[in-house]
Amino acid sequence: MQTRIEVGILGATGMVGQHFIKFLQGHPWFELKWLGASDRSAGKKYRDAMTWHLAGTTPEDVGELVVEDCKPGNAPRLLFSAMDASVATEIEQAFAQAGHVIVSNSRNHRMDRDVPLLVPEINPEHLKLVPGQQRARGWKGQIVTNPNCSTITLTMSLAPLKPFGVRNVIVTTLQAVSGAGYPGVASMDIVGNVVPFIGGEEEKMQQETQKILGEFRGDHIEPLPARVSAHCNRVPVVDGHTVTVSVELAAKPASAELHHAFDHFTAVPQERALPSAPPRPVIYMHEGNRPQPRKDAERERGMACFVGRLRPCPVLDYKFVALAHNTIRGAAGAAVLNAELMHSEGMLD
Amino acid sequence: MQTRIEVGILGATGMVGQHFIKFLQGHPWFELKWLGASDRSAGKKYRDAMTWHLAGTTPEDVGELVVEDCKPGNAPRLLFSAMDASVATEIEQAFAQAGHVIVSNSRNHRMDRDVPLLVPEINPEHLKLVPGQQRARGWKGQIVTNPNCSTITLTMSLAPLKPFGVRNVIVTTLQAVSGAGYPGVASMDIVGNVVPFIGGEEEKMQQETQKILGEFRGDHIEPLPARVSAHCNRVPVVDGHTVTVSVELAAKPASAELHHAFDHFTAVPQERALPSAPPRPVIYMHEGNRPQPRKDAERERGMACFVGRLRPCPVLDYKFVALAHNTIRGAAGAAVLNAELMHSEGMLD
Amino acid sequence: MQTRIEVGILGATGMVGQHFIKFLQGHPWFELKWLGASDRSAGKKYRDAMTWHLAGTTPEDVGELVVEDCKPGNAPRLLFSAMDASVATEIEQAFAQAGHVIVSNSRNHRMDRDVPLLVPEINPEHLKLVPGQQRARGWKGQIVTNPNCSTITLTMSLAPLKPFGVRNVIVTTLQAVSGAGYPGVASMDIVGNVVPFIGGEEEKMQQETQKILGEFRGDHIEPLPARVSAHCNRVPVVDGHTVTVSVELAAKPASAELHHAFDHFTAVPQERALPSAPPRPVIYMHEGNRPQPRKDAERERGMACFVGRLRPCPVLDYKFVALAHNTIRGAAGAAVLNAELMHSEGMLD
Amino acid sequence: MQTRIEVGILGATGMVGQHFIKFLQGHPWFELKWLGASDRSAGKKYRDAMTWHLAGTTPEDVGELVVEDCKPGNAPRLLFSAMDASVATEIEQAFAQAGHVIVSNSRNHRMDRDVPLLVPEINPEHLKLVPGQQRARGWKGQIVTNPNCSTITLTMSLAPLKPFGVRNVIVTTLQAVSGAGYPGVASMDIVGNVVPFIGGEEEKMQQETQKILGEFRGDHIEPLPARVSAHCNRVPVVDGHTVTVSVELAAKPASAELHHAFDHFTAVPQERALPSAPPRPVIYMHEGNRPQPRKDAERERGMACFVGRLRPCPVLDYKFVALAHNTIRGAAGAAVLNAELMHSEGMLD
Repeated sequence: MQTRIEVGILGATGMVGQHFIKFLQGHPWFELKWLGASDRSAGKKYRDAMTWHLAGTTPEDVGELVVEDCKPGNAPRLLFSAMDASVATEIEQAFAQAGHVIVSNSRNHRMDRDVPLLVPEINPEHLKLVPGQQRARGWKGQIVTNPNCSTITLTMSLAPLKPFGVRNVIVTTLQAVSGAGYPGVASMDIVGNVVPFIGGEEEKMQQETQKILGEFRGDHIEPLPARVSAHCNRVPVVDGHTVTVSVELAAKPASAELHHAFDHFTAVPQERALPSAPPRPVIYMHEGNRPQPRKDAERERGMACFVGRLRPCPVLDYKFVALAHNTIRGAAGAAVLNAELMHSEGMLD
Repeated sequence: MQTRIEVGILGATGMVGQHFIKFLQGHPWFELKWLGASDRSAGKKYRDAMTWHLAGTTPEDVGELVVEDCKPGNAPRLLFSAMDASVATEIEQAFAQAGHVIVSNSRNHRMDRDVPLLVPEINPEHLKLVPGQQRARGWKGQIVTNPNCSTITLTMSLAPLKPFGVRNVIVTTLQAVSGAGYPGVASMDIVGNVVPFIGGEEEKMQQETQKILGEFRGDHIEPLPARVSAHCNRVPVVDGHTVTVSVELAAKPASAELHHAFDHFTAVPQERALPSAPPRPVIYMHEGNRPQPRKDAERERGMACFVGRLRPCPVLDYKFVALAHNTIRGAAGAAVLNAELMHSEGMLD
Repeated sequence: MQTRIEVGILGATGMVGQHFIKFLQGHPWFELKWLGASDRSAGKKYRDAMTWHLAGTTPEDVGELVVEDCKPGNAPRLLFSAMDASVATEIEQAFAQAGHVIVSNSRNHRMDRDVPLLVPEINPEHLKLVPGQQRARGWKGQIVTNPNCSTITLTMSLAPLKPFGVRNVIVTTLQAVSGAGYPGVASMDIVGNVVPFIGGEEEKMQQETQKILGEFRGDHIEPLPARVSAHCNRVPVVDGHTVTVSVELAAKPASAELHHAFDHFTAVPQERALPSAPPRPVIYMHEGNRPQPRKDAERERGMACFVGRLRPCPVLDYKFVALAHNTIRGAAGAAVLNAELMHSEGMLD
Repeated sequence: MQTRIEVGILGATGMVGQHFIKFLQGHPWFELKWLGASDRSAGKKYRDAMTWHLAGTTPEDVGELVVEDCKPGNAPRLLFSAMDASVATEIEQAFAQAGHVIVSNSRNHRMDRDVPLLVPEINPEHLKLVPGQQRARGWKGQIVTNPNCSTITLTMSLAPLKPFGVRNVIVTTLQAVSGAGYPGVASMDIVGNVVPFIGGEEEKMQQETQKILGEFRGDHIEPLPARVSAHCNRVPVVDGHTVTVSVELAAKPASAELHHAFDHFTAVPQERALPSAPPRPVIYMHEGNRPQPRKDAERERGMACFVGRLRPCPVLDYKFVALAHNTIRGAAGAAVLNAELMHSEGMLD
């Protein structure tokens, strides 16, 4: 293995931080060397600074790392951010100001005019926003973001349909509890139950989708001129967000054309064989009752989007179901793939 | 208590049959005196003929009843049918031919041109199909049906909106496992999972909704000229079907008008104070994350439809969430309320 | 209805407080007139001071009550305590000092030498500790407690066996999430999972059982000279603690004797027909796979203990399974029944 | 990779059969070449003969194999049996008669006097029963079995304690739904519920444990002279059986001795580095609330037994909790490890 790029995690003790740690284990390009968290944790060994909430136990070597303050200083240039939204704005900006490349899963800068909301399979050209961002903000560093976990499931499933002109979309989510972090959803609220509301989620899905599928126009992204309507629900599933989608398509394609599009979709991360890119980013399942979160979300290392049940929609044009792993493809894995794309563009040199 | 009307159940040993037994306990008008089931069970005491799958145990007196063949003979005139679809057509017709009033939860005759698909709060006038049914089929008896359990949740929630001209509807269901009967859904398929397919359910929701909201035209029902698109999913919930609904309304009402409509909706069963009619058939909940199946489905004896989260839909006009108890309002309770309406019309005399 | 006794709740906004409110609805003897909670809530209407976590919604009249500080003053003489253990000691003592009768569900005083740990069906004579408590502490008021929710399930199931000489007991619990209050157990920890540890629970079961089954000796309770070993587990069940029990019995009875004991067990609350006393406090179920929490816990208004599967234990003498509703029989209902017993003894006059 | 040994599966279409297929993917010694199932499936491609119930989809190459009748003929010599108990006796015997090595997960021959009930880490010497089995039955082939899935969890956890003289054991299980196969447990019975009964399971645990921990005596196994008492329960967990164990130990060791025993336990499969042997067969977890099925069962490829919470038992000597993956270590993986041990003994040559 050649020399790897040193990386760190901002917000390493929370649940998304733990997902970053797990996902980065054995990464061929990135070597985890630095963990940042709140004052409360700084100075402690990682294993003493948190309770590990994921399957298995804390990776041995990471457990021994000493947690640092989230202040620029000795941190590596490339930092993945799993900061809580309540503090992410200032901290991420301070690091970017100090020259760090911040690849963030936090929502704070996603909708900023000069910040890419990146899905490497969909809008790699949005990275062209970065030079303007650096100029406008006077930064040597930069901030690049990935979408909300439910948005990414939706947009991945729509990506193969982009050539047909995605117009209006109505989507209902059935979201896993891991999406809410830890402690997140109280068991009293979700065991044997459905909660038909997730704060801010519908707005994020509606806005982020338009930006992700939008066009780069020099200094900003022109949002997709399509309306998106989301109904967001929590269900008693551990990992994997399921979405049901009805979509209007300008080109009125035949269903065989859509099947072909799903079956042959590939993109920049696959062409460049980025380490975390799944061989096929969108996998259409022909079984009549799939995809299902417990059976499919973890396949392909949690990095693919699974689609099924494509059929005509009596109201819009087509409808289908889609699924992606919300804490991998929808969070830690998404950010790591973003960094891989950036590295392949020479942006980490 | 005055003399009650004797009633029986066709298909008494299955899960829907058990729900009928439970719901009829202590009914002020109807007295359960007869239980019909397959040859295999006939001749046995009810308690020996089945395993009780509902909460609690078999009601004492019902347990002692001897199960009979599902053949006309000594059965009471009024029969609730919980027959399996594989046998319901012939058996229900044989009883109707023999003069029985069949109030059926089975799907077999729901879409027959001359059979009411009745929701007493929505289309009581559809009972006017019965004389024509009797003439055309040469029956002294009759068959009246109630909708599928997910359809009834949807149509109850749309009922207050009917004056505004219900046009296109896109609905996603999150359906409880009790809707599949017993043994129904394998636990291996649903614990911590979602199954995005229920056989035949989407077609039923799409067609039944149009008939239920349609207009009586002398000898048939003119379906509502609206398109309905359904995405049906199973979730690990015991009782209560949740639906998310986006709807187009011809009159383009203000949201205050819709709130008023939900808050003041009442109908024939309430005016006549039918025993199983909830005081308010549709209850709008103002809490931001309700209704929820485990917390709300059993309220109002399981007979109301709960609605919440009314808000504009960026694609159609409005969207909201609705919930009803699938085995009560969506099955046994629906049929009993149908029979109560029929009795109030003198159709059981 | 005759004049009812005014009662209040200490710690009314928490989950146990909500259970008290629900259980007291329509109580024939007690009328809820006063709600106490922390400074943060005091002065607000109850409906604005908390989020209702139980099924249904806040009872209308209770929602309008104004929450008061937990300080003696205008509170009714009889108070049910649902205080958090972190503050219960001082507050309960202050009220008892001021002359209030505190019927507490909190754990703080349960093991005090002069405080009854009361289960009306098992040890009503333990109330005789109260005069000594008042003398020793210089109180006009008093504190009476009920056991932990898992202890009560165990002790109720052992009550009919007391005449046979309960010796050693090994018990494993499968406890519902509602036992941990709100937010309590994180869904990430329990959906599709088991947590084999509940802080302090095993010690409570081991000690409280000995006291409850012990003998009143003038100024203290002589604990039952039996060893109790508990394994406590959390499972993804909403309400109802299941326990598996192996027990040694001094008298070495035949199994028919035990069945007779379970089937004929009755006690003071039944003889006096206390309003919350179930007709039969222990119900033996002969079905081979019962009791089950979701199907049985709510029967008998949640106040009975259900037992099943009595059979020889190859190591100790007998083994069986038992179940009770943890937030009703194991908390709010237990305390209300305690107060009813006290009223029937003239202790509230 | 050297030439691998061809193997087949009896009962390949059921759930245990699917687990064998999954576990054998990429096995370094065994190559799956033959699938046997009932007449109904014979002649079809495997993918058309069953519905795949495990996570992911049918392995491509296995899907193309044509299913054969379960009759001796062209099957490989080494066969894993996942036969249903209703047919396993005759079919397994017919194959053994015909010279096949049957490594069976079925319960039918487990308690036969001359059949090893093998756990390679515990009783490898029980394989010495085989020559006598062949002589007595006139077989060139042989039958070797693995224990029930809950027994294996218990016995693995007791293995390190064997030197201290395992005496009486009381065990309560919290078993996953996958243990019941497909469709197995109805979701109506287990969502949000516990079922305190599993047919035949307690007897199996009690008898099999004595045999597994027993001594080879020339032509039979002398059972461990210890009494085992089991309480078996089903809980809503997908994979992983949790057991709580109280145990009496003849040597009355100090707890440090037990910790040492758990931490240093190793056995023949580890010494020989059998391909499916976990590096450490028993892993003691020091976290206070582990092991947990959803977080730990799949670690170590599902082949280790996890133990935690060792503490004194007030009634017997010690108590603890243990966990193993029921369909891997408790079924398919157990049988494959058995075959690996047999191969290392030259029994497959």
